[in-house]
Amino acid sequence: MESFKAHLDKFITISDEEFTSVLSFFEVREVKKKQDLILSQEVCRSMFFVVKGCLRKFFVNEKGVEQTTEFAIENWWMTDTFAYERQIKTDFCIQAVEKSIILEINLQTQEELLKKHPVMERYFRMIYQRAYAASERRIRYLYEMTREELYVNFSTLYPWFIQRIPQYLIASFLGFTPEYLSEIRAKLRS
Amino acid sequence: MESFKAHLDKFITISDEEFTSVLSFFEVREVKKKQDLILSQEVCRSMFFVVKGCLRKFFVNEKGVEQTTEFAIENWWMTDTFAYERQIKTDFCIQAVEKSIILEINLQTQEELLKKHPVMERYFRMIYQRAYAASERRIRYLYEMTREELYVNFSTLYPWFIQRIPQYLIASFLGFTPEYLSEIRAKLRS
Repeated sequence: MESFKAHLDKFITISDEEFTSVLSFFEVREVKKKQDLILSQEVCRSMFFVVKGCLRKFFVNEKGVEQTTEFAIENWWMTDTFAYERQIKTDFCIQAVEKSIILEINLQTQEELLKKHPVMERYFRMIYQRAYAASERRIRYLYEMTREELYVNFSTLYPWFIQRIPQYLIASFLGFTPEYLSEIRAKLRS
Repeated sequence: MESFKAHLDKFITISDEEFTSVLSFFEVREVKKKQDLILSQEVCRSMFFVVKGCLRKFFVNEKGVEQTTEFAIENWWMTDTFAYERQIKTDFCIQAVEKSIILEINLQTQEELLKKHPVMERYFRMIYQRAYAASERRIRYLYEMTREELYVNFSTLYPWFIQRIPQYLIASFLGFTPEYLSEIRAKLRS
């Protein structure tokens, strides 16, 4: 869990002893590729932190097609924040893209953690601030860019993603069909 | 500033004395309708809290058209979070839609506030968590809905907005031309 400590150190000052206590509030889980962590219509009880691997969040649209809205790789959190905060049913699914190691925490345990270690309020404040900043920019891109520009922008900002994530999931994230993504890639190569 | 106290009370426990100290970190400003708070290419130094009135955030797209991406009414915050956190130039503008009363705070003063009143870490954590949850849902809507569905959804969720905000700004927010919005409204009425 050294990588989680190094991650926390970027945001807050925390001693080794305190870190050991913080860590005890989380459950460490190993999950297989394509393993489901939350299914649609289940109560969203947990948040997940990716120590190693990759998760995705998706919903199934009217046509029955999986629409990916988010990826989380190392040092990123994932949940359905709206449903988690209210402890209600989610209409998203969260699934492992790769074999992964994650930290899981539920709302009640998170509240106990925050009570015992108020410095974690600062940590989560900064995490949500950063996540919100990223989503503000993403919403702007969705207004501003054509689908082709979205792909070029995405592959410029996150080249390792394009290498790492299966093409059909990149297509799903960008709202393309896999065929349309192949067309764009062919056009950009030529 | 009773409404700001009532707003804080929803998230944290804070005494009248402590509130007076918290408030002293903010600058209270009255702004006129259409007054600019931040212009594109300026360093984003401040966050704004709406006590009364309404702000909007927009950018000017390639065609020279203002594209509104966000509104803030009473008890909501607004800034370009990405640029604010990094104290860099923004490529958004923030402008008053109505005559408004706002609280303004800059990054350095906010850090001093958080140091003196750590309970405000919890407050801002919950504010960003809520803002992020809203943007997660909004991104899903942008994937899932046609423009007409976006309008119907928006006017169902926020009927007072439709009454309050000028039509051309609603159109700009939804990515419509004002003419297209008129068409949808006529169709829905018939």
